Formats: sequence, C-alpha cells, structure tokens
Amino acid sequence: MTSIEFPAVDPPDPAARREAAARHERLTKPAGSLGRLEELGVWIASCQGKCPPRPFTRARVVVFAGDHGVARSGVSAYPTEVTGQMVANFMTGGAAINVLAGVAGATVRVVDMAVDADTPEQVSRHKVRRSSGSIDREDALTDDEVRRAVAAGMAIADEEVDGGADLLIAGDMGIGNTTPSAVIVAALTGEEPVAVVGRGTGIDDSAWMRKTAAIRDALRRARKVTGDPLALLRTVGGADIAAMAGFLAQAAIRRTPVLLDGLVVGAAAMVAEDLAPGARHWWVAGHRSVEPAHGFVLGHLGLTPIIDLGMRLGEGSGAAAALPLITMAARILTDMATFGDAGVSERSEDTASTPS
Amino acid sequence: MTSIEFPAVDPPDPAARREAAARHERLTKPAGSLGRLEELGVWIASCQGKCPPRPFTRARVVVFAGDHGVARSGVSAYPTEVTGQMVANFMTGGAAINVLAGVAGATVRVVDMAVDADTPEQVSRHKVRRSSGSIDREDALTDDEVRRAVAAGMAIADEEVDGGADLLIAGDMGIGNTTPSAVIVAALTGEEPVAVVGRGTGIDDSAWMRKTAAIRDALRRARKVTGDPLALLRTVGGADIAAMAGFLAQAAIRRTPVLLDGLVVGAAAMVAEDLAPGARHWWVAGHRSVEPAHGFVLGHLGLTPIIDLGMRLGEGSGAAAALPLITMAARILTDMATFGDAGVSERSEDTASTPS
Repeated sequence: MTSIEFPAVDPPDPAARREAAARHERLTKPAGSLGRLEELGVWIASCQGKCPPRPFTRARVVVFAGDHGVARSGVSAYPTEVTGQMVANFMTGGAAINVLAGVAGATVRVVDMAVDADTPEQVSRHKVRRSSGSIDREDALTDDEVRRAVAAGMAIADEEVDGGADLLIAGDMGIGNTTPSAVIVAALTGEEPVAVVGRGTGIDDSAWMRKTAAIRDALRRARKVTGDPLALLRTVGGADIAAMAGFLAQAAIRRTPVLLDGLVVGAAAMVAEDLAPGARHWWVAGHRSVEPAHGFVLGHLGLTPIIDLGMRLGEGSGAAAALPLITMAARILTDMATFGDAGVSERSEDTASTPS
Repeated sequence: MTSIEFPAVDPPDPAARREAAARHERLTKPAGSLGRLEELGVWIASCQGKCPPRPFTRARVVVFAGDHGVARSGVSAYPTEVTGQMVANFMTGGAAINVLAGVAGATVRVVDMAVDADTPEQVSRHKVRRSSGSIDREDALTDDEVRRAVAAGMAIADEEVDGGADLLIAGDMGIGNTTPSAVIVAALTGEEPVAVVGRGTGIDDSAWMRKTAAIRDALRRARKVTGDPLALLRTVGGADIAAMAGFLAQAAIRRTPVLLDGLVVGAAAMVAEDLAPGARHWWVAGHRSVEPAHGFVLGHLGLTPIIDLGMRLGEGSGAAAALPLITMAARILTDMATFGDAGVSERSEDTASTPS
C-alpha cells in the first residue's frame, strides 16, 4: 500500500557529540570512568545539538492502549477487560508506570487507540476502533485505519514536542499485545514462532501453545508484506502499535530523544525505522525485557539496553526505570567541575616515568 | 590480634519479607513482572521490618578518603595530591558523586581518614594518619591505628543513623586504593595477583606491571593473616578501608540497609562480613565495576549487582547511580494500587479454560 511520506531523518549533531566527548576528558574523573553514563551524555548532547546539554525538564511517557482480537483466543493470562480497567488506573495514578515515572521526574499520558471499551474523551480523542482484528485469521486494521493510527501517533508526538517535551517514552497497555509484537519481530528478522514467543503476562503451557499457533498463523500472512511497513501494521499489528510506530518516527523527525521500553514498543520501533530510516539514532534502549523476541529487536536496531532487571510489564516501565540514569548522564556534563575549575591535577603524561 | 567485639547481626525481618512478597501479588501488574524491582522492594521491607516500607527520606553517601604509600610506587595514573584536591571538590559539590547523589536525592559527606594533606576540620575529625603505609613493603597501619580506624567507621555509621539516615552508601577516594583492595580480595578468595589486578584510574602497561608486583609483594604478607580481619586491614588495608569495614558492619548492626559500590568498598565489605557475620544480608550491590577483582567480591558475598554500566570511578558513584532503582522498588510497594483498589480483574485461575 502507498506509504505515508516521512521527511528524511537528520542524524544527531556530530559537532555537539565531539564537544561532549572532549568535555568528558576535562571533568574531574578519569576519562571513561563513568562508562555508559559518559556515552549517554554524549548522545544527549548530540540530540540537543548543545554541549553541555540542557538538563531534561519535561520528560514524558505516553502509554498507547489497545485491545487485540487475538486475546480472545486465550493467548494471555488476563481477560481483555483489564485493558480498559488499566486505562482508568493510569488516569488515577495507581499503575506501576505512574510510580516509576514519578520517581524519575516524568509525567504520564495515556491514549486509547483501540480499547474494547468506552474510555473518557480526554484519552479517546485519537481512538481508531474498538479492538484491532484477530490477526491469526484476519487483518488487524483496514487501510484507512492503519493510516489514521500512524498519523495519530505522529500527531501525538507533535503535541508533546510542541508542549515542551524534551525526552519521550512510549509505553504499551493491551491484553494480548505481545502476540502481534512477536509476529512483527519474526516477520522482520526471519525468526520462527518458537523463537519469538514468550510468556507475556505469565501464561501457562497450554496458553503458550495457543499463542505459538496464533503467531504461526499470523506470520504466514505477515511474510507476504514484510517490505511494506504500513501493510505489515495493517495485517498483523494493531492501532496501538501503528500509533507507536508513527510516534517514534515523528519524535526522531522532531529531533527529540526517545527512551525505548520492551518488546511491544520495540516491535513498533522496528517498523518506525522502516518508515523513517535513521530514526533509531534518536533512540536508546531503556532496558532488556525477559521477552525473548526483545533480544531480536535490540540486535536488529543495534541498541544496547541500559538496564537488565528481569522486567516484563510494559507500560513504558523499563524505560522509566532507566530514566534517572539518563538524567544523571546529562547532569554529569552540566554540573561537574573541570580539572581547571576545581584545581585538581590531571593524570601524568606518561605513567611509566612517574614513580618517585 | 584481638578482634573488636561486634554484637551479633540480626537478619532482616522475615515476616515483613513475606508480607511484601504477598503484597506484590495484589498490585495491579502481573506477579513478578517488575523482576528485580520486586525483589529489592521485598528486601527493603524486610530491612525496615515494615510492609509497605517507608519511602527513603534521608539516603546518605559517606566518601572515605585516604592516601596509600604504595601510590608512590607508580601504581596509579594520577599523582597522590589528587586525593586532597578531590576532598575539596567533594566539599564544593563538583565531583561526580555530588552530581549523581543529587539526582538520586541523596546527600554526600566526606571524611578524611588518611589523606596525605591537611584538610578542613569538618572532614578530618576522624583522621588516623597522613597516608597509610606502603603495603608492598610495610604494614598499612599499626595495631592502634587499625582499631581507631574501624572504630571511626562504626562511629560514623552511628552518627549517620542517629541523624536519620535510612539508607547508606559508602564511597572511596584515594589515589592507589585499588591496590590494597585487590590484595584483600586475593587474600580472602585465594586468587592470584594477575586475576585481581585492574587498570584502576586507567594505567598503562608498565604501571600495570608495577601494580601487579606490588600486589604480589603485599599478598605474600597478607596470606599469613587471612583468618584475622583486623590484622588483614593492618597489614595490607589502610585507614580508609578499615573505616569503611567498620561502617558497613555497624550499618548492619543498626539495621540500616546499604547500597554497595565497586571494588574498594567491596574489599572493605568482605572484611566487614568477617568482622560481623551476616552483615551482608543488609547490603545490596549497586553495580558491577569493570575492575576484575570486583567480580570475586560479588561472588564471595553472594551479591548480584543492580546495574552494569562499565563504571570504574569509585566515590560511591555506582551505588548512587543505582539508588533511584531502590527508591522505585520501595515506591512500588507504597504507591501502587491493588487489584481491589483499582477495580482491575485478576488473572484467570486457569488460562487453559478461558478462551471463548
């Protein structure tokens, strides 16, 4: 199907990257001794085109909620009504992502893209339909719906960036959503269903067999459209995943850094990179999920996760957990003294000649 | 030599541990889906003897500074005067630990245990001497000094806990301090010098050879006293490491949880566990350092690091970087809604029977 036109994605600024790397050499610590925190600081400076970077003041989590028809095939440990109930829980601040984002200094927005229930107007403005199709036997969306969903994700990214967001996190909520995600990952990497299937919310062995069969059936149809990102989202994605893909691509176009979460966001990110090549340079992987398919996402996008804590919740929780480390990485560059400022001696030119 | 008498260390509270584990089952997320964050929350509740736990309000980093005579043998990339200069940098807030602790909501105190320079009275109140001995050829401390240093560390822990600290981090600052630390690790684990030697602040190959030789010479003397923790600190430790050992042991006795940093704190922790067996149950490992000897510390104490970011700075920086994750782990238990509170359906009893 005809693609949505994305403008070319600029890379983060190489001059600011070089300046930040050079600044790290002058700060009062051995060069490189903060490891990944130094690399992340350099990345932040390059995204902002500014060294030292501005500390983040408006990090924002957007949770994309949607139901999936395939959940009615018993691929999840939870009933589908949980998706709508959790939307309410996000709105009252009782979910894990609210707590983690709160500690990390981020705010949370939830958008209903395809929840199989009525939700308040403030979250359903971009809603495409009630539940995406059951991908084991039908398309997730129509042509028109997939375009509307991707455009909604782009519009949401624009709303957030225009509202001042300086770092974005996408999160997911949807009973059954690891099934379409695993299908997308398998379709784009050539992996088999048994390699990408995971326990999701914690399914037992018989649900695992049903989930594997559903992935196999959907993958058979997905393999025909792997070269066409919109067709792939239409066939085996869903409105929530399509919106996330638009959101992640548009964040890159708007030069706004993104902290990725686990499998569901990762599957959307793979499609976003196909929609807007180079977008991945604006993303870092917040964490490594226990979902096996997430490892393929990280490999495919060339991303190294910041933390690896055995998490598998979704909602953006893994990214939010990593967010303070991103904040620290920026603050190191802005707030630390240089050797000159602090009157601290630099390392010996040649340690071989220094023993007294 | 005669040991300092430590009272028995109580384990963290098993009832609060059970309560916290049970509470995790009722919060609005699949049980276990937050992985290590759930385990850390359970540990915090058991340390406090209270579920849900109290969120931390006064996390405190204490940086133990001291010079080491062995630094004059060319085992470091930096000159010894940096130790005193960095004490001043900590006091004015320009060092990495100040920045990381600030983001994490912790405050920083620095204590001069054996800096080879004069430092302000507010940090030198517990000072034992100027520079510990050069352990490749002489004892680090006298009998009297090692007792005073350990007692100072205990007194500092008491001061902090009495002042309201509810989570403690020990940090280190001292040019040359990874050399005595590596010796302690080798002595207590039976490893060879080449297995424990690391690049420290970033030494070149010839400094690496000098450092390995110094570790070998010190280890020869250390092997005779591995069964006597105070004698080990006296022979190959130093006033800063001895004080950290006293601090870590006393924190456990005062039932105060500790987030451990990298190699230097880890070496002190190994000795502290020998001084006060069971103290390690009050500690978690903040991070995995790139220093090779730190891996032996973690294995010996049975600790799994929270983050692994290629850090090797010391100062408590790795622990401070992990602190927000500890804060999150506590807040999950205190702030999340339960299924009952939020009106969210729980998982199906038997997922095999739920497909419709």
